[in-house]
Amino acid sequence: MSLDLLVIAAHPDDAEICVGGTLLAMADAGKKVGILDLTRGEMGTRGTVAERERETAAADRLLKPAWRGNLGLPDSRVALTLENRERLARVLRELAPRVVLAQHDDDLHPDHAATGSLAREAWYLAGLARVAERDGGGPARRARYLFHFMGHVPFEPTLIVDIGAVWDRKVELIRCYASQLAPQGGDDRGQHLLFGADILQRAETRARYFGERIGATHGEPLFARAPLALSDLASFL
Amino acid sequence: MSLDLLVIAAHPDDAEICVGGTLLAMADAGKKVGILDLTRGEMGTRGTVAERERETAAADRLLKPAWRGNLGLPDSRVALTLENRERLARVLRELAPRVVLAQHDDDLHPDHAATGSLAREAWYLAGLARVAERDGGGPARRARYLFHFMGHVPFEPTLIVDIGAVWDRKVELIRCYASQLAPQGGDDRGQHLLFGADILQRAETRARYFGERIGATHGEPLFARAPLALSDLASFL
Amino acid sequence: MSLDLLVIAAHPDDAEICVGGTLLAMADAGKKVGILDLTRGEMGTRGTVAERERETAAADRLLKPAWRGNLGLPDSRVALTLENRERLARVLRELAPRVVLAQHDDDLHPDHAATGSLAREAWYLAGLARVAERDGGGPARRARYLFHFMGHVPFEPTLIVDIGAVWDRKVELIRCYASQLAPQGGDDRGQHLLFGADILQRAETRARYFGERIGATHGEPLFARAPLALSDLASFL
Amino acid sequence: MSLDLLVIAAHPDDAEICVGGTLLAMADAGKKVGILDLTRGEMGTRGTVAERERETAAADRLLKPAWRGNLGLPDSRVALTLENRERLARVLRELAPRVVLAQHDDDLHPDHAATGSLAREAWYLAGLARVAERDGGGPARRARYLFHFMGHVPFEPTLIVDIGAVWDRKVELIRCYASQLAPQGGDDRGQHLLFGADILQRAETRARYFGERIGATHGEPLFARAPLALSDLASFL
Amino acid sequence: MSLDLLVIAAHPDDAEICVGGTLLAMADAGKKVGILDLTRGEMGTRGTVAERERETAAADRLLKPAWRGNLGLPDSRVALTLENRERLARVLRELAPRVVLAQHDDDLHPDHAATGSLAREAWYLAGLARVAERDGGGPARRARYLFHFMGHVPFEPTLIVDIGAVWDRKVELIRCYASQLAPQGGDDRGQHLLFGADILQRAETRARYFGERIGATHGEPLFARAPLALSDLASFL
Amino acid sequence: MSLDLLVIAAHPDDAEICVGGTLLAMADAGKKVGILDLTRGEMGTRGTVAERERETAAADRLLKPAWRGNLGLPDSRVALTLENRERLARVLRELAPRVVLAQHDDDLHPDHAATGSLAREAWYLAGLARVAERDGGGPARRARYLFHFMGHVPFEPTLIVDIGAVWDRKVELIRCYASQLAPQGGDDRGQHLLFGADILQRAETRARYFGERIGATHGEPLFARAPLALSDLASFL
Repeated sequence: MSLDLLVIAAHPDDAEICVGGTLLAMADAGKKVGILDLTRGEMGTRGTVAERERETAAADRLLKPAWRGNLGLPDSRVALTLENRERLARVLRELAPRVVLAQHDDDLHPDHAATGSLAREAWYLAGLARVAERDGGGPARRARYLFHFMGHVPFEPTLIVDIGAVWDRKVELIRCYASQLAPQGGDDRGQHLLFGADILQRAETRARYFGERIGATHGEPLFARAPLALSDLASFL
Repeated sequence: MSLDLLVIAAHPDDAEICVGGTLLAMADAGKKVGILDLTRGEMGTRGTVAERERETAAADRLLKPAWRGNLGLPDSRVALTLENRERLARVLRELAPRVVLAQHDDDLHPDHAATGSLAREAWYLAGLARVAERDGGGPARRARYLFHFMGHVPFEPTLIVDIGAVWDRKVELIRCYASQLAPQGGDDRGQHLLFGADILQRAETRARYFGERIGATHGEPLFARAPLALSDLASFL
Repeated sequence: MSLDLLVIAAHPDDAEICVGGTLLAMADAGKKVGILDLTRGEMGTRGTVAERERETAAADRLLKPAWRGNLGLPDSRVALTLENRERLARVLRELAPRVVLAQHDDDLHPDHAATGSLAREAWYLAGLARVAERDGGGPARRARYLFHFMGHVPFEPTLIVDIGAVWDRKVELIRCYASQLAPQGGDDRGQHLLFGADILQRAETRARYFGERIGATHGEPLFARAPLALSDLASFL
Repeated sequence: MSLDLLVIAAHPDDAEICVGGTLLAMADAGKKVGILDLTRGEMGTRGTVAERERETAAADRLLKPAWRGNLGLPDSRVALTLENRERLARVLRELAPRVVLAQHDDDLHPDHAATGSLAREAWYLAGLARVAERDGGGPARRARYLFHFMGHVPFEPTLIVDIGAVWDRKVELIRCYASQLAPQGGDDRGQHLLFGADILQRAETRARYFGERIGATHGEPLFARAPLALSDLASFL
Repeated sequence: MSLDLLVIAAHPDDAEICVGGTLLAMADAGKKVGILDLTRGEMGTRGTVAERERETAAADRLLKPAWRGNLGLPDSRVALTLENRERLARVLRELAPRVVLAQHDDDLHPDHAATGSLAREAWYLAGLARVAERDGGGPARRARYLFHFMGHVPFEPTLIVDIGAVWDRKVELIRCYASQLAPQGGDDRGQHLLFGADILQRAETRARYFGERIGATHGEPLFARAPLALSDLASFL
Repeated sequence: MSLDLLVIAAHPDDAEICVGGTLLAMADAGKKVGILDLTRGEMGTRGTVAERERETAAADRLLKPAWRGNLGLPDSRVALTLENRERLARVLRELAPRVVLAQHDDDLHPDHAATGSLAREAWYLAGLARVAERDGGGPARRARYLFHFMGHVPFEPTLIVDIGAVWDRKVELIRCYASQLAPQGGDDRGQHLLFGADILQRAETRARYFGERIGATHGEPLFARAPLALSDLASFL
């Protein structure tokens, strides 16, 4: 399999909430997109594993990714181990994405940060020939780009994807995760302990904020550690 | 006169749009707030000087600042001259604010950037005794804090003021500037050439975005170049 | 128990040396302060564990913290493991501090850096409901602020606490740790291998340096990764 | 006239040396490119104004820009005045480029730095309607992007243009400026006072260095202050 | 004349207070050091011009610089003009220093900041052959290094000069400026309006703080914008 | 043994490629230099362990280091464990280098990054007396400087070593590693997967690029986290 884009995220729904618009726009453009969730989200405040699996399946019916997988790591305990990064590198060789989007390695949630670091290390290891021979998954290769998407820590984006045209469908995608949106009673009023507001409202605020920075209605911010390569500035204009 | 807070901005309405919530909250708390506009906004895309003066007067009736003045510098030509900074330092000595909020010296609009630089230089000069003797305005003094507020270039804030309680009135304050909100026909659809969206929508997006970073519904970001001084951490808790 | 302030440090005496003034000022203001030492300092160049325990007890008699505990991790081997961060998160839920001060995760001493990272990760985990159910210690909660204090690597502070009024008592607090102050003969002349000068002199130099940055005689620098939230700028003035 | 790309540089030959490859690649792709030199380079160490004009004409015969102009500012005295920035803004309205490349405002050569600042300020002013009415040059407009190119101070690029395919012709373009390449006898051995090496060798070193960062043989680095906008990540892949 | 070291500062006494130790150590080592004051300090809070000239003369008797000059610019109005930077470049060609120390271009005092910018621009211009022909002062040349010293804004130093051996004489040097040290009565208690403490105490605090960072008793911090060149790492060891 | 300089690198040949010029220049100056490779490079794309050992021996015959050792850690799995850092700290106590050069802890290759972090932590631990007693290798000591050299991620250097005089011999040193230079057939054309170009060409490009920044033909960039200490600015001039 040879994906155009692979999103790597710690918990099911992270991919949709953070870069659902980019995924939709890419799929609309006929690109093969994939999502790798590292955990099943079993330690999430709301929802059971079974509920979350049904919700992910519903989201997949809307997005229709070419591939979706789950590494089954323990939620709240995603660790930056040699084994985890080698498993992830193997997946990268198997799927051969041209572009990878992963959480940022600086994030308040330790799982997000570990996911970002694992993605960064695995991205490099996936391109080492003897590591490929030892660990399997196909020949050595590296995605052309690794972008980080935004979690709980803001960054100045390298680029912002205009998702205005798919915003309504991104909302639907997030709504698939009903268990994550509904207050569970007691102290749970549906709001994030740190940031207040519920998931949908926060996703909208962020999309508007970054959209307005590029003159669009909605946008998703991405960060690249290395300079972008342009074989053709004309195509960019 | 001895103000608690002085806002220095390039164009009438900049103060209200950028830190109107902070101004309202301070006034509500019984503090003496003031606004110094450096120009009359005569080169603004929309509205005449007469209209803008009426709008500023309307805004003042809502906010009731203890002082509002205008330096009468030429709009689109605010320059970082010795003369301008000395005039500004004189105003600072006259008003003796304890805290100054000014635009940031890194901004896309040259008037904003020049205002930020003038404020920073004047703030220092205002505290030099012989400059005070030479230029008048009262004894040398310096505001305890100089904060920059956000214009067209984002920054990572040092602090964010929770303006949730006064947000509705901040909207009214901005609405006073009707000429700035209405499309003028032709190519003018009421949107910013760079950022799209109209003034009110952009103000709301920004207030929500920074509010959510501190668990509030609406917030205004401020930036300090020097560390904040805390005589009493307990009072901050 | 519900603390106002909890200090997390790698070795007994780190808390007193780095933020002893803040602790004293808070205690004077009637706040409940606590200290969690992660190790017993058994690999310190000077003093035995027994001596250090007596010294810590003496310091506690001066400061009278509402709580002091020790996680018993191995000195010089504080590790950023899942287990350690979960134990720390449990303590955070039990003590429910409103503000946490911890070492910085960028420091020359690996124990200090690990302490800073553990504190940052545990602070977040402490707020996850199911992690709280699994690991105990009470309901999920997160301190309002996590500040880092300064060890062997300087940073530009977010805020500086004026400790001029309690400086003399901070000196007494440090003097409780007599074993750490006295040269042990041989090559040990009481000076730090890297920085020269003894502990008291270095503490004084730093206190004066940061104090003068805010116009105080003595100060302690703190660093926050996220913007400070101000519900009321007026109270800050 | 409506250019696709305008390069703004302090001295004739700066444009070719710094972004000649990008200019050639754009022209090859059928885009309309322009160059605005701010001075005639009359204070350059080598060559007369007449020589330099002949050399610029020779370079233009190779590159065939859609437009080339000269603002006639005094070499070594490019100043950041209101008048200069308004003249430049007028040119920007007249030429209506979609993308502007200008020197960076942080550079050792004061002319380069002033050019970068003028370009940045003029770029913004060009989009103000009443400034356009007052100063002429056509309706208000702003280039979609303003990139800075590299002079004497390195920066981490936002993007690097692959110029491997046009490198040989970039060398020819630089060779047109024969007076700048030849030692003038005496102390002048053709080398830069600070950096050693002659212009061609330095251009090659830099092109190789930045090319290798993107896996190309030669590259030209560009820096953007704001995030890039991507209406279509697919097109970028 | 060919100096080893030239210090450029806005006001008489700035050089001694900020880098007096480096000057003393260099002079002790038989190097030719010089000081260029840009103004006569006539707007200083304390002391008359006549007093300050006598004090400078006294300091010179201690330090015995190979050269000391004064550009006579207006105190509190040091401006970043073409004329000023060309005058300064001429002085640089005349004195031909191998190393220049100047104030930093980021400083709270506008004179300090302007001095730093003028020094940086003049340093470059001094090396342009035709500027040298036009403006005089001798052949084009550039100091090997331009370092900035610290004023009112801290920076992370590139290097710290160990001045422990000359600290006592640096204190004497500062004491020469008696008018600057003595309170003038009224509100003037000898303290800096922003930073409290008097000049000598602040100089000592800073010297101790930066000294301890390199294991010395006293140090002076310097900042270089470009990498240091080492023809011989061995000599550095 | 008491080394003047120790280079710590993940794979045999890293030391020669990155800082071979500095090693040669130091050895020429009569200094005792050493190299510690952490792994045998057994997962390298090209060459067998036996080949690489012969190549390292050949390089050693050219450079004649006073010491070369290998920690035998697993290639592609250099881990930041307590055990590894304690082994490394023991080596540092045994060799007692005055200066350490190690890879940077921010690098694309996980082995490089881990080597940089291990070196930084071990450098500090080596100076703790009781750690020395527990782990052996001689008395506690710390190298005066720890510099990081450049791998796959560029940094702004603190200093650049002029290696122009030994460049030709650095090329010979790199040529000793013939297996690393020759394409292995199939997809392997001798180029780096990310950066294109072969090892020798990339080494030359980088040496020229950093050399030109200091007016030399070839240079090697080094980065220090802390300010350099200068007991004598005169010696630096």
